[in-house]
Formats: sequence, structure tokens, C-alpha cells
Amino acid sequence: MAARPKLHYPNGRGRMESVRWVLAAAGVEFDEEFLETKEQLHKLQDGNHLLFQQVPMVEIDGMKLVQTRCILHYIAEKHHLFGKDLKERTLIDMYVEGTLDLLELLIMHPFLKPEDQQKEVVNMAQKAIIRYFPVFEKVLRNHGQNFLVGNQLSLADVILLQTILALEEKIPNILSAFPFLQEYTVKLSNFPTIKRFLEPGSKKKPPPDEIYVRTVYNIFMP
Amino acid sequence: MAARPKLHYPNGRGRMESVRWVLAAAGVEFDEEFLETKEQLHKLQDGNHLLFQQVPMVEIDGMKLVQTRCILHYIAEKHHLFGKDLKERTLIDMYVEGTLDLLELLIMHPFLKPEDQQKEVVNMAQKAIIRYFPVFEKVLRNHGQNFLVGNQLSLADVILLQTILALEEKIPNILSAFPFLQEYTVKLSNFPTIKRFLEPGSKKKPPPDEIYVRTVYNIFMP
Repeated sequence: MAARPKLHYPNGRGRMESVRWVLAAAGVEFDEEFLETKEQLHKLQDGNHLLFQQVPMVEIDGMKLVQTRCILHYIAEKHHLFGKDLKERTLIDMYVEGTLDLLELLIMHPFLKPEDQQKEVVNMAQKAIIRYFPVFEKVLRNHGQNFLVGNQLSLADVILLQTILALEEKIPNILSAFPFLQEYTVKLSNFPTIKRFLEPGSKKKPPPDEIYVRTVYNIFMP
Repeated sequence: MAARPKLHYPNGRGRMESVRWVLAAAGVEFDEEFLETKEQLHKLQDGNHLLFQQVPMVEIDGMKLVQTRCILHYIAEKHHLFGKDLKERTLIDMYVEGTLDLLELLIMHPFLKPEDQQKEVVNMAQKAIIRYFPVFEKVLRNHGQNFLVGNQLSLADVILLQTILALEEKIPNILSAFPFLQEYTVKLSNFPTIKRFLEPGSKKKPPPDEIYVRTVYNIFMP
């Protein structure tokens, strides 16, 4: 039996949360080793466990994968979340890349100066409402299916749902002008593996708080 | 006969230069439509030609692809530059993602304040020498082949060569401590399709100058 993937990252969302989402959506059980100190990071670096000295790092199938996108692609490919042909794969890739641009704003948000945080929430809301959500609303309206690509769950759905739910925590009515995305969010949240991940006690991490921000600074600041 | 890909971007490197590199390496002829004004960008946006309102955009095989990585992946997949199996693909993906992090510093460099530019060159040199080049030097030393993965040209080689040559323009001796990368750079530069791309008259763009920076500001600043 193959070993369970082991995730190396602080105990918070950051860039690893997408990896937790896609593993959970694929129904894969995983373990986590939480980085809590600079010394733990140095130990991983000195032991040549981090190809480019950085986390996220995931031990999986005998490899030590780094780079968020590479980890997501590998898991998606292995678990049939990357389309049935090159055309579907390319659509999924394009949707994921756009959504990751939006998600990146959420990931960086807790590390902004307090006086910039509210302004950035407005910026995120605008980007979501003007640039990204209309694209996905139109896709769903046009094909009338429950998933973005190929009428089955893909990496694009997982990352979009993660991003929508994280945005809704900050801006509860963010989907008010997008009825198809509202319905999509409800249906996708009831997809069995995702439903379990959204229930209490799963490995989904809570919104970043002061302790998480301080831990990240302590580990990664020179 | 399939139409030649058409690239939509300003007449300069930026995020499109990697796409030019990989098309050239794959031996694919392409056309370019240069964005020169804000009005041209708005026309593309208003005509729904840009999925997320942004360039790079590449018309290829009946699609309008956006998002740099998605474009690179599609071309690499189509032209056998993405490995022979999932394991090779994942290695290539990981190497490309690391190299793109380094290349991003080069892409943003001309847009820094003049007083920050020299400091950033030092930062780039350190990142290259401490974090990225040792990885690739070790790969080449260990397997003794001419390419990073699978003993044949891949997207990882194309992006790494692009990045090395662009760094050498700023820091001529950047490879002095990396003999295997030096040899690799020379050999790869003589790969037939790449050799042609490096010759005068190709679609390779010159280093960013003041005119390019001003054009980009004029097009993209609100």
C-alpha cells in the first residue's frame, strides 16, 4: 500500500490550502507535519528536502514535490481531475490560473499593513466581480452543467470553490449578482468528498489569524 | 493547413517572451500583433477576446489562450516538450515553476524605481546563485546529459536557457561557479531551432528599454 502523502507547511492556509482542498476532493487521506519554527525550516533545507529551499512541500509517491502549481497538477493528473483530453486540460489550466491570481490576493491579505487591509478587500471584491466571476457565471449559464469543464469535477472546480468560500468569509454577499455561481457553490459543496472536507474536524484550516501571521513571520523572516 | 499562432502583446519581452521562446524551440512559425495603445487593449477586451481581460493572449488552434503558464503548457504538450510520462512531466513542471519565479524578477525589474534597480540586480544574482542554479548544476552533473529531463529538449530547458541568457545580459559572469550550466548553455544555444532564434532577425525581443517601459505604462495604467 502506498504511503499517505505528507504535507510540510505551517498550520494555516497559505499556499498549502489548495493542496489540502484537491487531496480532499480526490478522496485522498493525508498527513501533515506543521512547521512551527525557523529551525524546522532550516532542518528541511539543510537535509536537501526542499528543491528550491521553499515550502509548500509534499512527500508523495516517493517524490518530494515543491511549487504549489506543480503539486496541484500532479494530484489532479493522478486523480482524473484534469480533463479527458488536451482541450479540456487546457481549459481547466486556464481557469485555474485565473482563479489562482484572485486567490493570491487572499493569501497575501493577512500580511498587509492593517491600514491597507480594508482597501485591499475592496480591490479583491472588484477583481472578483468584474474580472473573474462573470467568466465562470457565463460558462455555467451557457452549458447548464454542474461543473466547469467536461461535466465532471476538475481542479478548476476545486480551486474556484475554495476561492469563492474564502471570499465569502470576508464579503458575504460577493455572489449576489451571480445566480449560476450561487447554485454551483451549493451543489459543489455537497459533492461527497467536498462535503466531508467542509465539515468540522476535517483538515481544512480556519481563516488566518494573528497567531498564524506571527508564526509565518517567525519562520520565514531572515 | 492550420493557421499560424498569433501572439497579442506589446512589442517587448514581458510575460510573452517565454511563449516566443517555446514556439521557436518547437520550430513553430508565428505572427505577432503588437499592442501599442490603450485603445487596442480596450478593443480586445470589449470584443471578449481576453478571458480575464489580460494579455498575453495567443490565438492558436481555434482557441484564444490566456495566462502565460497555460499557453506554455499547451504548446509544450502539443510539441512533445513535456516529458514521456507523469513522472517526467512533474519534474519538468517543478523545474519550470522554480525558474519562472526567478524570471519574474527579471520581468518586473524595468518597472522598479531607478534607485531600486541596482539593489534588485544584487537580489536576483543571489537568488540565482544560491537557490536556483545549484539545483540545475547538480542535475546536469549527476546525469551527464545535455537536457534537464529525459535526455531530450523540454519546456524546462527552454525556460532555463531564456532565464540564464537574460540574467547574463545584466550579470555577465553569473555562471562562473557553475561549469555544467556553462557547458549546457553553450550546447543548448546550438540546438538548431534555438540557434536560429538567437540569430539576428528572429522574433526574439531586445532587453527592455525606456520606450518599452513607457509603452507598457501607457497601455496598462488606468
